[in-house]
Amino acid sequence: MKNTFGQSVAVTLFGESHGEMIGVVLDGFAPGLQVDEDFIRHQLSLRRPQGKISTPRVEADEFSIVSGVFEGKTTGTPICILIPNTNTKSKDYAKGLPRPGHADYAAECKYHGYQDYRGGGHFSGRITAALVAAGAIAISALRQNGILIGTHISRISDIRDRSFGSYESDIEALADLTFPVLDAGKAEMMRACIEDAASEGDSVGGVLETAVIGLPTGVGEPWFDTVEGVLSHALFSIPGIKGVEFGDGFALANMRGSQANDGLRMQNGRIVTTTNHNGGINGGITNGMPVIFRCAVKPTPSIFCEQESVDLAAKQNATLILQGRHDPAIIHRARVVVDSVAALVLCDLLALRFGTDFPK
Amino acid sequence: MKNTFGQSVAVTLFGESHGEMIGVVLDGFAPGLQVDEDFIRHQLSLRRPQGKISTPRVEADEFSIVSGVFEGKTTGTPICILIPNTNTKSKDYAKGLPRPGHADYAAECKYHGYQDYRGGGHFSGRITAALVAAGAIAISALRQNGILIGTHISRISDIRDRSFGSYESDIEALADLTFPVLDAGKAEMMRACIEDAASEGDSVGGVLETAVIGLPTGVGEPWFDTVEGVLSHALFSIPGIKGVEFGDGFALANMRGSQANDGLRMQNGRIVTTTNHNGGINGGITNGMPVIFRCAVKPTPSIFCEQESVDLAAKQNATLILQGRHDPAIIHRARVVVDSVAALVLCDLLALRFGTDFPK
Amino acid sequence: MKNTFGQSVAVTLFGESHGEMIGVVLDGFAPGLQVDEDFIRHQLSLRRPQGKISTPRVEADEFSIVSGVFEGKTTGTPICILIPNTNTKSKDYAKGLPRPGHADYAAECKYHGYQDYRGGGHFSGRITAALVAAGAIAISALRQNGILIGTHISRISDIRDRSFGSYESDIEALADLTFPVLDAGKAEMMRACIEDAASEGDSVGGVLETAVIGLPTGVGEPWFDTVEGVLSHALFSIPGIKGVEFGDGFALANMRGSQANDGLRMQNGRIVTTTNHNGGINGGITNGMPVIFRCAVKPTPSIFCEQESVDLAAKQNATLILQGRHDPAIIHRARVVVDSVAALVLCDLLALRFGTDFPK
Amino acid sequence: MKNTFGQSVAVTLFGESHGEMIGVVLDGFAPGLQVDEDFIRHQLSLRRPQGKISTPRVEADEFSIVSGVFEGKTTGTPICILIPNTNTKSKDYAKGLPRPGHADYAAECKYHGYQDYRGGGHFSGRITAALVAAGAIAISALRQNGILIGTHISRISDIRDRSFGSYESDIEALADLTFPVLDAGKAEMMRACIEDAASEGDSVGGVLETAVIGLPTGVGEPWFDTVEGVLSHALFSIPGIKGVEFGDGFALANMRGSQANDGLRMQNGRIVTTTNHNGGINGGITNGMPVIFRCAVKPTPSIFCEQESVDLAAKQNATLILQGRHDPAIIHRARVVVDSVAALVLCDLLALRFGTDFPK
Repeated sequence: MKNTFGQSVAVTLFGESHGEMIGVVLDGFAPGLQVDEDFIRHQLSLRRPQGKISTPRVEADEFSIVSGVFEGKTTGTPICILIPNTNTKSKDYAKGLPRPGHADYAAECKYHGYQDYRGGGHFSGRITAALVAAGAIAISALRQNGILIGTHISRISDIRDRSFGSYESDIEALADLTFPVLDAGKAEMMRACIEDAASEGDSVGGVLETAVIGLPTGVGEPWFDTVEGVLSHALFSIPGIKGVEFGDGFALANMRGSQANDGLRMQNGRIVTTTNHNGGINGGITNGMPVIFRCAVKPTPSIFCEQESVDLAAKQNATLILQGRHDPAIIHRARVVVDSVAALVLCDLLALRFGTDFPK
Repeated sequence: MKNTFGQSVAVTLFGESHGEMIGVVLDGFAPGLQVDEDFIRHQLSLRRPQGKISTPRVEADEFSIVSGVFEGKTTGTPICILIPNTNTKSKDYAKGLPRPGHADYAAECKYHGYQDYRGGGHFSGRITAALVAAGAIAISALRQNGILIGTHISRISDIRDRSFGSYESDIEALADLTFPVLDAGKAEMMRACIEDAASEGDSVGGVLETAVIGLPTGVGEPWFDTVEGVLSHALFSIPGIKGVEFGDGFALANMRGSQANDGLRMQNGRIVTTTNHNGGINGGITNGMPVIFRCAVKPTPSIFCEQESVDLAAKQNATLILQGRHDPAIIHRARVVVDSVAALVLCDLLALRFGTDFPK
Repeated sequence: MKNTFGQSVAVTLFGESHGEMIGVVLDGFAPGLQVDEDFIRHQLSLRRPQGKISTPRVEADEFSIVSGVFEGKTTGTPICILIPNTNTKSKDYAKGLPRPGHADYAAECKYHGYQDYRGGGHFSGRITAALVAAGAIAISALRQNGILIGTHISRISDIRDRSFGSYESDIEALADLTFPVLDAGKAEMMRACIEDAASEGDSVGGVLETAVIGLPTGVGEPWFDTVEGVLSHALFSIPGIKGVEFGDGFALANMRGSQANDGLRMQNGRIVTTTNHNGGINGGITNGMPVIFRCAVKPTPSIFCEQESVDLAAKQNATLILQGRHDPAIIHRARVVVDSVAALVLCDLLALRFGTDFPK
Repeated sequence: MKNTFGQSVAVTLFGESHGEMIGVVLDGFAPGLQVDEDFIRHQLSLRRPQGKISTPRVEADEFSIVSGVFEGKTTGTPICILIPNTNTKSKDYAKGLPRPGHADYAAECKYHGYQDYRGGGHFSGRITAALVAAGAIAISALRQNGILIGTHISRISDIRDRSFGSYESDIEALADLTFPVLDAGKAEMMRACIEDAASEGDSVGGVLETAVIGLPTGVGEPWFDTVEGVLSHALFSIPGIKGVEFGDGFALANMRGSQANDGLRMQNGRIVTTTNHNGGINGGITNGMPVIFRCAVKPTPSIFCEQESVDLAAKQNATLILQGRHDPAIIHRARVVVDSVAALVLCDLLALRFGTDFPK
């Protein structure tokens, strides 16, 4: 444990990188929501590897929904989605020589060597395909309730995308981009940066920035189930994420209260804030402004340089040179995973706040 | 909900800033642990306001432990700690004019005006005193098991403390500092920076950095109860925290895999990593290296400048000028709250991993 | 753990029989509900010992609500209620000689001797006073939403009370009875039966029957959070309860499907069942009919006969003759505990179903 | 929600009676346990319909384990087991005419008509096959730790089996019986009773009695996660179970304390009780004696008599005559479901108590 997350709406994950299939159970989702399999396919396609900047292992992701959907709509009972693994090359993976930056050694400590080591097993980014499939249902449902989520690559190294401008049009524009950057010129520079690292057998990290608009006020359950707390809890499960910040986040360390406070005022009969340094959340509760957060994504740990490792059986130092197919960057693929996880978490918080018939 | 956090070891918070008392129930703690009331007092003193850089509201924090401790030791049943509020000036607080940067407006949305608005009510930083009292028991217990936690102010504005050097001696040195900075010269600069803001009725934020040493390997429950996920979930409950990062965190966005990966090697018969860019956690599980994380603390929202607000009853714009007693910085006081929350979360993860008799 | 129960609405218990005080935190309750302290007092009075059929230890139960209620109404944040212990005679209790039928020996196994043994410590029925205080708030809130709960002593030994007739008037009649029996003649017989046992230093058990009317349909979360499952989970926490059945319960073992099935028909535009053998629950979900359940209460284990025990320190057989003040029956006092626990559980299930503003 | 049950060891259920497949995710199970597929097959066979006393719908239950088992052993990560549905006759089921005694109408209220109504959908007893498959892994693991579970039909109507005598040999004897009765003569009488009801298109209920031996002392987490509470919570999820009692249960209502208390004494250096009226549990915690509980199973609601129902669309009374294939009794098939659920719950409680490497 704990491969289940959520209280009213919950996801349960299973599967390994080189097992027969991976999957997810999405439980507690409101009944009567249209399930659009094309949209699930679309979302999975955003996660799929892309040409030179990704691994050559491409999975078809031919998912099947085996429960919880009847005559095209959610029933309110658990939705299980299965995604077979078809393109595995297990012989690329050696047991007993943990890969630096991966979960291999930590998993060995926890599972005493019984874990499926092939391709990272249950710790593989492969599992996120299941999150994306479940997340697609959540994203659709939120959209029908006027809640939109969008994520772009905010930076890779020192190449910075512009910030969100008009949220709605930016989010719409990102929806179909496989390399999600708002400024097309910066997208080119980022791709070049990834290819550059790839050509040296190396990899890069970056920062993803997410905006959620249309959320009702009063969502979040203090003290402990703050919107920040619950979102970050889930986001840190995404492999490679090592930092999460809301609103101005770490930049607040350089600000004064007079700069960081968001004034309040009336606008068209509604209360809004004059700025949004707090990212739409005060006291852990939504205030009706866009929820803004950023995730730090570490460089993919699978690189082709010689690395120091340890032979677990012999208990002696060893040198590791990776084989196999790897991504020089996962940040563009991680984008849809972040959107998916955020949507699932928000569906849960909304259902807790408004009952199990929400989203409608 | 949710004022309870934790699965095997759990804390439940209650109380308001200007209510009769605040308190905490610490449940699931192992039996037979010595409870040192002097240490609880010491920890509470680290949270107490300090001279010019803090609010003049000083609470005696005369706690009483009313259950769960018998003949000086934990019984294994719930420990309830009560802390009366004695120094409240409720007339300083006006209803219906939400303070920018505070939870006031968000709470109004969630609780429909029924919340106790005086001094922030249940959202007040005052409640963290209860976390500190409970955390003191957790910190003692971890220490008896060789696990040490220490936090310093990593930076305020652009004034940066040095990083942890020798963890053990640095953590020991921090234990008694009311202004927890490793480099005494930088401490003076930071204090001056806070006083400077205070003289203008303004406030400052900063970054806290925490190290935990001595943790066993194999702690953390993927996918969703990763050490990062569970810690961040709880840390974001601390008022003012808007970012959490582990290991090199957001700095990983500028690194390549060859720089970010932590090689493995044998050292005195034990497996260690050659660097610690991942902050002691891979795949959400401890790897035996120091767990390192940083929290972004926003500037205290209570400032004495004129601010834009809204009269909730009249539904029209209004100007707010705060009265009352406020902190120009809370970062030095938040330090012990971070230590406490981290200790409580780790006790829970350790008890899940090793059973309810842990920590011993 | 686990002294917290509930998901959206949760109670956390603390305290020991001979400690300074006991208490409860009620979290997640909707904001804006009137809190009637007189009703809490009334409910506590129903739990208080009564003359010859109860222990001479009578506690004043002078509770105080120290958080979560502001200007007479719930705030939506945690409600902590404290009840001091005033009338304790700890010297009546010997350590190391576990009392048959009590938790003493099992607690010794779990807490390794560190538990507070005086008066049963945290396992004492005394703790149920806190459940009753919290339950009173829940019962009031349900009543305002047209949901009524009532419990009577269904039988003691072979003396059987009549069944519920007109639910509403029966529930109203029970509300003020300290010895809750629908048929006054049977009440006399039951009292005589208890006094008879008391005169021999012995004790009796019995069965409590509860009806809940006015619940909406569609409440309960299958598979696992069925109304039966969640209610029984909480009910078995009440000391002395060893059986829980719904509808016709164990009597269904003697019935055929044609007798046990509840037909459906229209009545005043609403769907009802023609009988209620299933106790208002099908598939774990309410069907709109009265929810009916019964709890088996074992005879009070504190009796004044000579009993076999073991000297834990010496590890040898020993004879135990109890001192102290004890109840020859607790069933009449347990009634209000059952009502309280049921109300708390139902508030949780209703809030999960309809959101955190319910009950209104 | 809530189709996930358990804290440290958890099961998640999904699927519908007439969907493509049903399944279960078993999460948090200790790594390194041998998984015996033959034993899973054996357990599923105990649940399968049997000749004249069962439905003619016989499913092959050709399960596949698609994750969490590697090289024949548990990995410690989630185990997903899939069981296809192959023998469905959906046209036997009419929408909009709820069957008395079934979940149909309650489900309509909760899911607003979007539920899969065919064969009871997600509420079907069919789903229990998944619990049995997961439970087989738990039963094996407990057995390796010296913990044995066995259930027999204690009575059907007034035909009563003998009680457990020698627990170990009785449990072993039950393991292979498809009609689990200790006294073979009574088994014949019970079968005749079922056939008799079947010949009239009717059905019967009964009582199952379970014994668990070999459990360590000190398991269970009061107040709320008592062994009774957690077991009953899960047991009430099994379709048709309407009562659960521990030890002497409802019979305690007729006993005096001097009869119901279990004295303590030394036996071979171990503390035991002289009787076991409390069913191995005091204060919600195991005391080392056999844990004994009984479940009331209602008569199968699918019967072939004419029954009163309501046409949901027309909102008018209607007569229902069931078609399809049904069981005149499910009690013999429910037996292995009870064993499975108990084993899963106990694995969870044991892992909470002793850590995630238990059972070993």
